[in-house]
Amino acid sequence: MVSTLSPDDRTQVLHELPAEVTQQLMDLLPSDDLAEARTLLGYPEESVGRLMTPDYVAVQPAWTVERAFAHVRDVGIDSETINRVYVITADGVLVDDLQLRKLILAEPEQTVQDVMDGSFVSASAFADREEAVRLIKRYDVTALPLLDSEGVLVGIVTVDDLLDVAEQEATEDFHRVGSVEPIRGSLQDASTWRLYRSRIGWLLVLVFINIFSGEGIAYFEDTIMAVVALVFFLPLLIDSAGNAGSQAATLMVRALATGDVKMKDWFSLVGKELGVAVMLGATMALAVSVLGWYRGGVDVAVVVAMTMVCVVIVGSLVGMSLPFLLNRFNLDPATASAPLVTSIADISGVLIYFSLATWYLGV
Amino acid sequence: MVSTLSPDDRTQVLHELPAEVTQQLMDLLPSDDLAEARTLLGYPEESVGRLMTPDYVAVQPAWTVERAFAHVRDVGIDSETINRVYVITADGVLVDDLQLRKLILAEPEQTVQDVMDGSFVSASAFADREEAVRLIKRYDVTALPLLDSEGVLVGIVTVDDLLDVAEQEATEDFHRVGSVEPIRGSLQDASTWRLYRSRIGWLLVLVFINIFSGEGIAYFEDTIMAVVALVFFLPLLIDSAGNAGSQAATLMVRALATGDVKMKDWFSLVGKELGVAVMLGATMALAVSVLGWYRGGVDVAVVVAMTMVCVVIVGSLVGMSLPFLLNRFNLDPATASAPLVTSIADISGVLIYFSLATWYLGV
Repeated sequence: MVSTLSPDDRTQVLHELPAEVTQQLMDLLPSDDLAEARTLLGYPEESVGRLMTPDYVAVQPAWTVERAFAHVRDVGIDSETINRVYVITADGVLVDDLQLRKLILAEPEQTVQDVMDGSFVSASAFADREEAVRLIKRYDVTALPLLDSEGVLVGIVTVDDLLDVAEQEATEDFHRVGSVEPIRGSLQDASTWRLYRSRIGWLLVLVFINIFSGEGIAYFEDTIMAVVALVFFLPLLIDSAGNAGSQAATLMVRALATGDVKMKDWFSLVGKELGVAVMLGATMALAVSVLGWYRGGVDVAVVVAMTMVCVVIVGSLVGMSLPFLLNRFNLDPATASAPLVTSIADISGVLIYFSLATWYLGV
Repeated sequence: MVSTLSPDDRTQVLHELPAEVTQQLMDLLPSDDLAEARTLLGYPEESVGRLMTPDYVAVQPAWTVERAFAHVRDVGIDSETINRVYVITADGVLVDDLQLRKLILAEPEQTVQDVMDGSFVSASAFADREEAVRLIKRYDVTALPLLDSEGVLVGIVTVDDLLDVAEQEATEDFHRVGSVEPIRGSLQDASTWRLYRSRIGWLLVLVFINIFSGEGIAYFEDTIMAVVALVFFLPLLIDSAGNAGSQAATLMVRALATGDVKMKDWFSLVGKELGVAVMLGATMALAVSVLGWYRGGVDVAVVVAMTMVCVVIVGSLVGMSLPFLLNRFNLDPATASAPLVTSIADISGVLIYFSLATWYLGV
C-alpha cells in the first residue's frame, strides 16, 4: 500500500472533486486503490454506493464457527465494523447478517449455517442516500449491507457516514426553504460571487411573481383613491397570509423529508389544516378589527376582519399543498420556500382584500 | 428480568413522558430496571446522559487479555456495541478505550495495560446532546463514553441514538425558522388544537409588528394621494426586502447550528453580506425599473430602483445579524424566522420607500 490516506479519506476526497480531476487522479493511484475508487465512482452522485466501504467481514454458510472466527481475526483489522459479519454464498450473494456475539457464543464445531436466522436488512447500492438513512434508523443497525441487482454484497455503509449525510440533506432543505440554492461546503469559504449566484435566481423569480400583486392593486385604483385608509392594512393582511402559509409549508416540507407524512396523507391533512386555519384566522381577525375600527371606522373594520379570515385560510391551504404538488411532479418539496409561499399568498391577499372592500363599501 | 421492553425501548418511553408519570411508572418497575431508569432521569432534559445506555463492556488494566476476552464473552451479549471495550480503574475512572480487534489480535498472556494507548474521546454525561453529535462526527466513532465529574465511566451513547437526536434538532430548527413552536412527535398525530397553539403565538406577534408598517403608510398618506402609482410597487419592494432578509437569516441560522460559523465571525461576514446585498439589489433594481417606467414614468422608476437597492441591503443585514443577536442573548438563533425577518424588513421598506418618494418627487 503506497497511499498514506485511509480508505475513508480517499473516498471523501474523491466525492468532492469534479469528474475530470478524479479521472486524472485515478491514473496516479496504485492499482489496488484504483479498483476501490473505480467501484465507488460507478454509482450515481446521491446514491448510497458513493458512501460505501468494501472493508467488511464476510463468511460462508458451510464454514465452521471456528473457521469463521479465524477469518474475522485475519481480515477484521481492516474492517470498518466487526459488530456484524455478513454471510454470503460462493457467488457472493448475501444470505444473512450475524452479530459477532453470536459467533463468539456458538460452539466452535457448529457451522455458520447452524447459527443463521436468515433475516437481514439490506439496500441497493444504487438506492438514494436518504433511503439508507431511513433504513438504518428504522432497524437501529450501525451498518447496512449494500447489494447489486443480483443480490451480491458489494459493500457496507456505516451509520457515522450517514450521520454526515443526514446533516447535509437537512442543510440543503434549510437553504431551499429559505429560497437559497443549496450551498455545499462551508458558508465561511463561499465567495461573494458564489453567494450572489445562489440567491439572485429566486429573488428575481419572486420579483416577477410580486408584479402580479402590483397589477392587482392597479386594477383596484378607484377603490384605493376612494378609501385610502385601506392601504394602511395592506402589509398587515398580505403578510399574515404569507406567514400562515410559511408555517404550513415548513411543517409539511419537514414532515415529508423525515417520512413522517406520505403523499397519500394530503387529503386527510387538508381537512385538519382547514380547521386550524379557521381558528387562526378568527383569532387574528379579532386582534386587527379593533385597530380597523380606530383607523377607518366600523365598515373598514368589518372588511379587514373578513379579509383576515379569508387570507389566512387561503395562505395556509396554499402553503400546505404546495410541497405535495411539487413532490407529485418529482421536484424537491423544500422548493415550496417561505418566500415563494409568501409571494403567492400576497397575490391572493391583494385580490381578496380589494374585492371584499369594493363589494362591501360599494365604491 | 420481568420487563419485556428492551433497554432501548424503555429509555425511549421514559424520555417522552412528563415527570409525574415517570415517577408513577418507576414505582411499578422491577428493581434492576428501576436503577437504570433512576440513573438516566438524573440528567437534564437536553443532556446526552438521557440517551446513554449502561450496557457496555469494561475491563481493568491489570487483567490479562485472556481474562478480558472471557469477560467480553460473558457480558457482551447484552452490550450495545462490542467494537470498543472500555478500560477503567478499580474506582471506575475511564483510562482508555480499546478496539475489540486489538484484544483479538493480542497474545492471551499480555495484560490490558500492554495494549493500551491511553488516548480516548469522552464527554460529560451532563454535556448537551448536540455537543455529543459534534464529537462523534469529528472523531468518527460509533459510540462515546460518558463520564461524571470525577471521570468515572457512567455509560455510553451510540451513534444510532444520536442520529435520531440530530434529526430531532434539525426539525425543531426548521419549525422555528417557519415561526412555528416546535412540534415534538408526529405531525400526523398532532391535534388541531395543538397545531393552533404552536402557530397562533408568532402570528399574533407578527400582526402587531406589521401594524408599524401600517402606521408608516398612514404617515405618508399625502404622498400616496399625490402619486397613487407608488402603491403598485409596495408589495414588490417590501417583499423583496423580506426575501433577501429571509435568505440571509436562513444561511446564518443553519451555519450557526452546524457549527460552521461562530459568534466571532459576525464582523467578517457582515462585510461579505454587504457586498452580496449590493450586487443583489442592483440586479433587482434593474429588473423593476423597466416596469416602474411603464407604470409611473421615469421619476417613479428612479424612486423604485433606488428603494430596491436600499431595502435589499437593509433586509439582508437585518436577516444576517438577527440570528447572532439572538444567540448573544442566549436565545435560539432559529427564532430569527423568515416571517419575523420579513416583518421587520417590511417596516424599514415602507419608511425607506415613501421617504425617498417624498424627497425625490417633492410631494
